[in-house]
Formats: sequence, C-alpha cells, structure tokens
Amino acid sequence: MTLEGLSHFGAARGVAASRTFVAVNASDGSPLPGVFHAASLPEVEQAARLAGEALADYSRRSGSERGALLRAIAARLEANAAVITARAGLESALAPARLEGELGRTCFQLRLYAAAAESGLAAGVRIDHGDPARKPLPKPDLRAMQVPLGPVAVFGASNFPLAFSVAGGDTASALAAGCPVVVKAHPAHPGTSEIVGKLIREAVAERGLPEGVFSLLFDDGHEVGAALVTNPRIKAVGFTGSLAGGRALMDLAARRADPIPVYAEMGSVNPIFLLGGALADQAETLATGLHASVTNGVGQFCTKPGLVFVEAGEGAERLIAKLAALIEGTAAGTMLTAGMRSSYLRGVAGITGVAGVERRAAVAETAGRAGAALFVTDVATFRAHPELAHEVFGPTTLIVRCSSVAEMAAAAMGLEGQLTATLHARPDELAARRNLVDTLVGKAGRVLFGGFPTGVEVAHAMVHGGPWPASSDGRSTSVGTMALQRFLRPVCYQNFPDAALPSELREENPLGLARLVDGRWQAAKSD
Amino acid sequence: MTLEGLSHFGAARGVAASRTFVAVNASDGSPLPGVFHAASLPEVEQAARLAGEALADYSRRSGSERGALLRAIAARLEANAAVITARAGLESALAPARLEGELGRTCFQLRLYAAAAESGLAAGVRIDHGDPARKPLPKPDLRAMQVPLGPVAVFGASNFPLAFSVAGGDTASALAAGCPVVVKAHPAHPGTSEIVGKLIREAVAERGLPEGVFSLLFDDGHEVGAALVTNPRIKAVGFTGSLAGGRALMDLAARRADPIPVYAEMGSVNPIFLLGGALADQAETLATGLHASVTNGVGQFCTKPGLVFVEAGEGAERLIAKLAALIEGTAAGTMLTAGMRSSYLRGVAGITGVAGVERRAAVAETAGRAGAALFVTDVATFRAHPELAHEVFGPTTLIVRCSSVAEMAAAAMGLEGQLTATLHARPDELAARRNLVDTLVGKAGRVLFGGFPTGVEVAHAMVHGGPWPASSDGRSTSVGTMALQRFLRPVCYQNFPDAALPSELREENPLGLARLVDGRWQAAKSD
Repeated sequence: MTLEGLSHFGAARGVAASRTFVAVNASDGSPLPGVFHAASLPEVEQAARLAGEALADYSRRSGSERGALLRAIAARLEANAAVITARAGLESALAPARLEGELGRTCFQLRLYAAAAESGLAAGVRIDHGDPARKPLPKPDLRAMQVPLGPVAVFGASNFPLAFSVAGGDTASALAAGCPVVVKAHPAHPGTSEIVGKLIREAVAERGLPEGVFSLLFDDGHEVGAALVTNPRIKAVGFTGSLAGGRALMDLAARRADPIPVYAEMGSVNPIFLLGGALADQAETLATGLHASVTNGVGQFCTKPGLVFVEAGEGAERLIAKLAALIEGTAAGTMLTAGMRSSYLRGVAGITGVAGVERRAAVAETAGRAGAALFVTDVATFRAHPELAHEVFGPTTLIVRCSSVAEMAAAAMGLEGQLTATLHARPDELAARRNLVDTLVGKAGRVLFGGFPTGVEVAHAMVHGGPWPASSDGRSTSVGTMALQRFLRPVCYQNFPDAALPSELREENPLGLARLVDGRWQAAKSD
Repeated sequence: MTLEGLSHFGAARGVAASRTFVAVNASDGSPLPGVFHAASLPEVEQAARLAGEALADYSRRSGSERGALLRAIAARLEANAAVITARAGLESALAPARLEGELGRTCFQLRLYAAAAESGLAAGVRIDHGDPARKPLPKPDLRAMQVPLGPVAVFGASNFPLAFSVAGGDTASALAAGCPVVVKAHPAHPGTSEIVGKLIREAVAERGLPEGVFSLLFDDGHEVGAALVTNPRIKAVGFTGSLAGGRALMDLAARRADPIPVYAEMGSVNPIFLLGGALADQAETLATGLHASVTNGVGQFCTKPGLVFVEAGEGAERLIAKLAALIEGTAAGTMLTAGMRSSYLRGVAGITGVAGVERRAAVAETAGRAGAALFVTDVATFRAHPELAHEVFGPTTLIVRCSSVAEMAAAAMGLEGQLTATLHARPDELAARRNLVDTLVGKAGRVLFGGFPTGVEVAHAMVHGGPWPASSDGRSTSVGTMALQRFLRPVCYQNFPDAALPSELREENPLGLARLVDGRWQAAKSD
C-alpha cells in the first residue's frame, strides 16, 4: 500500500499543500517513507460536518448493519495483517509477535462489539406498560432505549498502535453504538494509521454507509485535536494517553458553549499488595511474574505495576533479591519514541534522587535504549514523598516495605484512583483482610486476586478505567462491551402506537432482545 | 415541629451565631416563623468530612439495608404529611391538593428506588467465566458490578419543594446507590427543608447508619453551594434549576483538581407539534389539554410546553381561538417567589416586543400575581428571533404557524436539546412522518405521541433529561430508576475466590439477581 500522507474527510482526501511531518523509525530515529500532511482547520470543519450529516442515517441503522461494518473492518485488517504489522513495527519498535497479537485482539474486539450491537446488548431496552384505568391519572406506556450521542472524536494511543488507535476500542465502541467517528491519528505511527484508516474507509464504502461515518486527520501538533474537541458537531471524545493531554482536552470540552463528555484513560501506577503468607509460599514465583509484568513491552502499558507493597520479612527479601537479579539480567529496550525514553530517564532519575530510596538494580541505557530499574523503600519514606506515587512510564517499579498489613492498608488509603489494584495473599489472609479489599475496590476500576494487571481481557465484565486520575470519568471503561455505553443516551417513547416504534421497543420483541419489562428482566429470545 | 433554623452536620446541629435569613410567605411576601442560619465554611467542611467517613460503611451496606432506609424515610414523611404540606404551602403558594400529590409521589419514588436497591437492578452484574486452559494465555474469571461513586451534593429545586428537594429524586437515587448525601436546602422553602431533613436524620439514626449518611445545609447565597461542589470529599452533584445556576456549578466542578460529574436538569421549552389531521379532528380538545399543561401550577414545571408548532389551517385557527378564550378566563396565580414573577414578567414583555409576534391573549397581573399569556407567530419570525426559543418559566406559550410539515420539521431541526417533544397526528400522518419523529428523538430525552409533557411518571423507563441545554449530561435522567446509575461506577473483580466476592457476584447468586453471564442475561430468581 502506497502511503499518500493525506487525511481522509469522508471519501475525499486532504490536499498536499499543508504543513508536513514524517514518521520516525523508533529503533534508530531515521525517517521512514511517507510524508504526512497536517489537516487544515477548514479540513477539520469538513470532517466534523460530514460526521454530523452522517449521523441521521447511521444512527438509524440496525444493530445488524452496524455489526456488519465492524466485521468488515476486522476482515480487512486480517487480510492486510502483514503490511500493517510491518509498518507498525518500524514506527513503534514493538516486536512482531506482540503486534500480531495486538492485531488479533483488535479484530476480536471489533467482532465482540459487533455482537453487542447485533444482540441489542447496548440497547438497554426498558418497557413499563401503561394502565389507562389508573386513578387519578392514566399510567402512560413508556419505552426507553439507548440512542447514539452523536459524532465522536477519537485520539489514539502511542503504546497500542492497533488496539487503542485508529481501529481500536474507542472507534469500535463508537461505531457499534451508532456514532460517526473522526480519528486524530497519533503522530508516532502515522503510516500504520493511514493503512488502517484506508481499510476502514473501504469497509464504510462496501457497506453502503454515508461517507461521514469515518474520517481520519493527521497532525503532529495540537491544533487539529483542539479544533475537533471544540467543534459543535462533535458530541463526545475518546482519548488514551497522558494525564496532561487528557486534562487539556477535558478543559477544552468543559469550556464549550455546550460541554461534552471526554473519556480519557490516563494511566496509573497499578499497586500490587503482597501479604506475608503469599511471600513466604512463593516469593520466587512472584518475582518472576512481577518481572515480566514490569518489563514486557519495555514497561509501556497503562497497567504496568509501578508500586509493590510488601509485608516485610524473609519472604519479601527473597522476592527483592530474585527480582533484582532478573532486572539486572534484562536487556535494555527501545521505547516507542525518543520523547518517552527521555521522560522515562527523567522519572528514574527523580526516584534515584529521593533520600531513603535504594536503587536496588538498574540496567544502563545504551544508545537509544532504556534500561530497567528496581527501587526499594520503606513506607515512611513513601508517604513523605508523594511524587513516588506518580506513574513512571517504562520498565521500573518501586517496592515499599511495610511492617504490617495495617501500614499497607493505610498507604493504600492514601493512593489516588487507579486502573487496577492487585492482591496476593493466602486464602486465610484474604479472609482476614476484607477491609483491604474494600479499600482497593474504592480506589480502582479492576481488582485482581493473584496474577498481574498487565493483560486486559476484552470481555463483557472488563473495566479498564478508574477514579481520577486513572481516567477522566470513573463511571466508564474503555475496554469491554460496557465501553459502548459511553457513546449512548437514553430516550423514552411515551404512548406511541406499536407500529411507529423502533423494532427494539415493539411489544412482540421482533429482535428477541433482553429487556427490562415492568421492572423484571426478560431474557433474550435466543437464550 | 419547632423550626430551629440550624444546619444538620450528621447528627449535630449548626451554631446560631452565623448569618441569618427568613422564609417568605409566597402569597403575600410576609416573613414566616423561623430564623435560618447560613452554614459557615468550616461547617460545610464538617458535613463533607462526615459524608466521606460514612462512605466506607454505607457503601458496603446491602441493597436491603439501603432500601430499608428509603422506606423508613417514606414512612416518616407520610406520618408527618400534614405539617410538611402546611409549611410547604406557605413557602411555595402551591395548592394543598398539589402538595399532597407531590408528597405521595415523593414517597412512591423513595419506595421504587428502595426496590431497585433491594432487587439489585442497579448492581448491573456481569460475569465472564474464566478458562484456565485457554491458549496462549488462560482466560481470567471476571465479575463486574456497580459500586457507589462517593458523597453526593444535592441542590433542591424551588418548584417541587418535596419531589425534587431534600428527600427528592436526587437524594433518593444517591442513597439507593449507596452514596452519602449532603443537601444544600433551597432558600425558598427552608422550613419545609428543615422538617424533611429532620425526618431523614431520624430515619438514619433508626437504621443504625453512620451519621454522615445525610447532612442538610442552609444558605440564602451561593457560598455554601460553591464550597460543597469544590470540596474534595464530594464526588458528584445533583441539581435542578436554571441554566445559569447549573452552568455555574458545572464550571466549578470542571476546574477542580479532580473534576467531578454534575447532573443538572435545567429545563427546556418542550415543543409540541400539531399536525393538520389531529387539528382537524380535535382542535378544541387539544386546546383544553394544552391550556391545562401551560397553566397548571402557574406554569412552573420544567416540562411546561412553551412552543407549539401548528400546521396552519382552519383547525389551527380553531385551536388558537379556543386556547385564547381559555387563557383569558384563567385567574392570575401566585408564583413560587417574587424573583420568579419578575423573571416571568420580563420574559413575557420580551416576547411582546418582537415584531411579527401577536399577543393573542393576556391576563393582567394583579398585586403579586402573574397572568397567563398566549402568543402567536409565523415560522419565519420564529426562525429570525432565536430568543423566542428560550424558556419563559410561567403560564405562557407561543404558537408558531407553519405552512407545511416540512417547515415544521426544519424548525425542529434548529431547536436546542429538550427534556420532551410531543407530536399529535392521525395514525396515517404519523406513518408518513417518520423523519419528524427521528428528528425529535435526536433532540429530546422523552418523545410523546399525544398527550402533554407535564406529568413525569416515576418509572423504570422514564427519561427526564435531554441533550444540552435541557440537562448538563444527556446520558442521564433525574427521574426513574435509571437515575441511580448517575451515582455508580463499575468495578471488576478478577480471579477472586468465590467466598471472598460480594454476594452480588457469587456463583450461586444468593441474592437472585438478574445478571449478564457470559454475554447472556439470566433473569432474577424471583421472576
């Protein structure tokens, strides 16, 4: 596929006269083929206008038709897997196996959300039958369902060039919900974005949908993104990235004449709590698992564990010793961008400089590569230095020795909102620490017993979000079928004749949906 | 019940040394018994602190325990109905029958939300079973449920001193969701607020719940409200009132270090669309119904129809003539406050001054009372004067003659977001006007076929909210059991032993909840 470097405004391409940038080979900093043209402000307006115009048609398409679009996108991604992962590998320095896995995950996600659209899972139908004889006033017939919010602006993440980017979770959930999408491509992987965007455009055309259902805009600065978020046609924003980036979009959205929701997933430190019994039983196994979770993908996951609270003792020291050895043996890795590497090195230097923190293991950085690092401290030092609880994006973690579980629980209470929190304990320890679990539930969107938080299953029950600052809106998830709810709003039809109702709401339930009828769930007909 | 005029900070009362104000008899402007003491900023902090401290306990109470609190509140309201409605009548000038009905509605609402808490309707349980044998990685066991967001600040409305005030929908849904509540009492009915607040405090004590579950703060200015919304302990805001008031709270919340959601229901003009066939068949009946919807309660409903689009013709003229006669025969009414009357008179004067608008009927205001008014214009004038689409709170409406349904549909497309939109048509007209219905669905939270929008049923399928500026967040409703969802967020438990899970998530489903299991709804056991 030849890269033209031009934005897609619906079916049209941008002009080549505008500001340009190139993609960079993440492994050596050299320029990659392709010159990308930043969209102009009139082009942003055009993409938003087309999305607004497409809404009336696309929002009325059935769940089956929306599902068919998502399945067509998945099929095209699979058919072009080699070219997609090759370019993504150059732009991200992520390994081929990782990118093949990520492509598979992206397609699985598209098909799961397609199924959610087809099955009416996201329609959320509620029916309260009327009673014309009720006194003093007749009871109306009320039928509610979820309808699309409107055009959605999507900002892809750099660390998942496929699963959280152009055809990633935000795009998939917005399209499944019936919302047209305008993607602002991440400048770290514009070539991958162009390839994927072109395949989505082909799928939109194949399904006979209005062109404004999908547009893709290039920019290596902030102008296009700001113009999108403040455009009156855009009704919601999906974002994955830094706290500063997410907050900037939130502030723009909140100052609009009509404020709109921003769903920003901004990462967290994903604390792990290792109780004494678990450490006594399996310190070395825990060290091995923790090492993989901290260093896989050069530590560039939103769910990388950056804080590990251990109940002090012999088991904890075995864990630390083993983990230090594993870290020392880890080859330095290439990060997604030079900017991320700089941020990582700054973060590690900051921790190194805190009195009371021991740098227990550190791999020297080599040209362009970042070395893993392990730090250890005590809970008093941790609590005296709030900056130790901030995310450092990359392959490092900080172990905090606690002299008691009570001390650990107090430290947990002081944490900010998290995407995940993980507890390792013997069953009898778990039973005695119900309060610690409840504290973690109050802090995080996902709480794990055992295991490690990296690896986010795409499922109905997944929650990938959490209280501020893990995400802008702790009521939402950016992964799993609950993600569709971000882009829907309820509408109630009162006293409509059956024939004039949408199929979802008709009395005979022609689509066989699960529905809440007079306060009781009726299972879907297919069940 | 003696009015002490002191805020409730949990179980304690405020001190009497602070700034004071009195309640006003809405009918004659005279002061009513009772001196109310505005809460100080340390007192606001104390209420928020107690709410934060109560969260851990209250959020872990079962749905049955939360339900029992709401039922205890309802029982106390009913047992004290006479004293509540007597004081509310003095403070609001609303008729005894209206207030008795509103008290009944308030208690029905408390019990319906209690049932939602008890039945697990709001728990939204989703279970995806794991598969340890899955390749390449085991599939985790994931179990998600909704948990409380945290302490909620509630701002009552002046126009429903019971159903949208201290024990109203926001308080009831937050308590049912497991969130402690701090209410800022509306200064137009502080005595009613104190009586109801004291009964809620008694119910909290009777149920053995932490004192911070409910507090009530007085203030006749904005200081207490601003301090509440910006307090770090408060995690969400419920508000019913003006666009300016709601926007001010939204802006405060958006500028916090940790932005929080504000659910503000800010009213709308609730357009009605009368097609030619419906007018030909029943112009006089429509006029009678419209007159009641515009003038009942002196037009002081968020759902009062303020715009009526009619397909021009003989039927439309009969409707206008009949409605004008009914308006002329309407006695001037006392509004909730002198400020509202002034606003109403300004609004009516503003419409009167627009060239091309005919004042077809108007009742003279008398001392302290507001007269109903009927205006008529054509669609060209309407579209040339955007201010004609703004809400005028009180007993007036504007009829807009349209020469065709296409013209009507174009006017509908230009409207802002609405709480409701209503269509009257013959069945054959409805079938031919599917696009008009779709336009209205795109604009409103509730769409009625026939009838009138005043009268908001408290039900599972009700939506009382709508796209901006009808409400701050069109994804939400402030009436009906979906209102609980505003104060909840999802949490996913990954790979927990069954015995360590909350009852809602245990495999054997001991609470008999409806749950989404592996993507399919399983009905509640009681069904």
